Order: sequence, then structure tokens, then C-alpha cells
Amino acid sequence: MNTEDRWSATPPSRTYPKGDRRRTQIVRAAFSAFSADGYRGASMVQIAAACGVSRAGLLHHFPSKELLLAAVLAERDRINGELFFAGMAAPGADGLDYFRRLLRVIEHNASQREIVRLFATLSTEAADPAHPAHAYFANRYRWLRADIADALADLAGRGLLRDQIDLAGAATDLVALIDGLQIQWLLDADSVDIPTRVRARLEELLTSTLDS
Amino acid sequence: MNTEDRWSATPPSRTYPKGDRRRTQIVRAAFSAFSADGYRGASMVQIAAACGVSRAGLLHHFPSKELLLAAVLAERDRINGELFFAGMAAPGADGLDYFRRLLRVIEHNASQREIVRLFATLSTEAADPAHPAHAYFANRYRWLRADIADALADLAGRGLLRDQIDLAGAATDLVALIDGLQIQWLLDADSVDIPTRVRARLEELLTSTLDS
Repeated sequence: MNTEDRWSATPPSRTYPKGDRRRTQIVRAAFSAFSADGYRGASMVQIAAACGVSRAGLLHHFPSKELLLAAVLAERDRINGELFFAGMAAPGADGLDYFRRLLRVIEHNASQREIVRLFATLSTEAADPAHPAHAYFANRYRWLRADIADALADLAGRGLLRDQIDLAGAATDLVALIDGLQIQWLLDADSVDIPTRVRARLEELLTSTLDS
Repeated sequence: MNTEDRWSATPPSRTYPKGDRRRTQIVRAAFSAFSADGYRGASMVQIAAACGVSRAGLLHHFPSKELLLAAVLAERDRINGELFFAGMAAPGADGLDYFRRLLRVIEHNASQREIVRLFATLSTEAADPAHPAHAYFANRYRWLRADIADALADLAGRGLLRDQIDLAGAATDLVALIDGLQIQWLLDADSVDIPTRVRARLEELLTSTLDS
């Protein structure tokens, strides 16, 4: 199949509202499939069947599995951004605001097993430099650590952080804590209350409470 | 294929040293395959090819993929146990000794990308209750949290732990921290020094240093 021709065509989303709905269905089915079986484990045939389109119909919207993965990750980021980070200034502009929003994401995800599993599955699978989401996850962790370190720096500047905290180290640890709690929670949801643990860790770092 | 007949047969390891070597080769190949592609992503055909046996030869040693997975996990636990926990009393008998051993495992794993990746991949994949390693990982996290909480309780009893530490919560967080740091390290080995971060976290909890 010649993917270049498809790339140069007008995106169906601009011209066909019906195609838009179909596209949304496909992204949703891919989301479930990648979450359960990983990117490599899930097949295009399986995803096409799950939303009732033919393989050719699927390839019309997403000429390759890589492009479908990119759409799934972009959709996840769009939803998250709209729900939690709309109207926020830079993380370093108001650290308290940033961590309150982060906690709301985490509380929201406590009812979103499939989203949590998607990221846990893909971020691990993407350890392989040849994986199509490798750069996405490597970059995502890079900016997440940087954002958290900026938010902590703002708090330190305002005297809201305890003394002698290594900002970069604490940022790395906080991201790690959230990811690691998710692994335990995915295996046994009763074993851990993720928002409670993350809030406790944040309040260990702060001299004030996080409540607004 | 009738797996019961094979189960009831004398284990080849007892009678055939050559079979033993072959078995070891197969477990090693499976280890690599599961680490890179996950349990579900890796195929028996691929594993057989990687160690130069036929599919029938592989099935002679491991009648099912589940049994091969069990052998890989048992082998990993055996090596780890021999290297780091030989001669140790219960974790609660000497918390300092336990955490020093735990740090040695983590330092050792910093040169064992494949082992780290195997556990990261399988523990995430095993979130599915139908996965053959689900019970293994759910139990593993349960006893790991309990062991760490016991070791912390020993330290608390000896006045070596800082005040007001929730033992069960700190144990959950410590396991999570290690797992989460591994995800970041697998994506970008230069981004994080796992032993340094874990040691720093342990020393935050302790009133003394971990050095012997």
C-alpha cells in the first residue's frame, strides 16, 4: 500500500462528519486494544472487527498502525489537557495550582482503569528504542520531570517547601511513585489508594497543606 | 496434546544431564523473548528458533507456554535469592540487613537491563486477571510490601526510624518508587540513577545511615 498517497489526500476529518464519527470509533477501539494487549500484541484486524469496519475501511482512516497509535496518544493528551490543565499558566508560575491539578488528574484516573493500563503497558513496551512510541514516552517523562521541578521551585521560592529538598530528584521520585503505585493498583485495586499516597507524599514535601 | 501424560512422566532434569542443559538454554531464550515482547507477544516458535530446537523439542521440555513462563519466573527468583538473600533471617529480624540487601539487588540490576525489563513488562501485562502470571505478581507485591513493612517495624522498634511514619504506606511507596524509577530508566538510562534515588529515600525514613 502506498501510504504517501494517503498522506497527501485531504484529511477526511475536514470534509466528512460521518468519517469523523468513524474515526472516533476506531481510536476508541484501538485505545482498548492497545491497553489490553499492548501496541505490538494488538492487531489491526482485531481493531477493525471491534468497531465493525473492514480492514480496508480502517486503513482508509489510518494507513498504518503507527498512525493509529499516534492518534490514540494525542486523543488521550487532548482529553487530559481539556479536563485538567485548561487555563493554567506555566507549572512554575504557581506550584500549588499545578499540584492541585495533578492530584485531580490522579483522582480522576482512579476510575479510569483502561487509561492507566494503556499508559502502563505502552510506556513499558516503548522501552525498546525501535518502538514507535519510544520518543513520545521519553519526551513525556522529560517534560513531566521538568514541569514538576519547576512547580517545586516556585514553592521553594515562596517558602512553601521544606528545606534541603533536591528539586530534580524529588520530581523524578514523584513521577516514579505515581507510575509504581499504578502497577500495584492494576494488579490489585484494593491494595493501594493512589490519590491518598500521592497527596501524603506531596504534603511531606510541603510546609503547608495542598487544600485550597 | 495431552499435557497430563507429560506431567506424570519423570522430570527430564532428574535423568538426563543433556536435557538439563537444553532446558537451561530454553529458559534463557524465553527470558529474552518475554522481556522484549511480553509473554503474549513472544511465540513458542520464536523461542524454539532462538535456541535451535524444533517446536516438538521445545514442547518436550515445556508442554505449554504457561509452564515455560513459570520456569522463567522461578529461575529469576532462584538467582536473586541465591545472590542476595541467602542466609538472611526474616526481614523483620534485622531491618538494616534487609534494606542493605535490597539496595544490593537494585545496584546489581542497574547492569541487568533485561531482568528489569522482564519484570516491568510482565507485571504490567499481568494486570489482566486472566494472565497466567497474574497470581504470581499479585502475590509477589503482597509479600514484598509485607516484608518491607516488617523491616521498617524492626527499625522503628530499635529507634532507627523517624517519627510518624505509616509503615504500610511507606512500604507501598518504596515498592512503587523502585518500579517507577525503572520505567524512567528503561526509557532513558541517563535520566535517573536508581540506586542513588532509592538510597536517598531510605535515608529520609531512617534516623541513621544505611552504611554498615
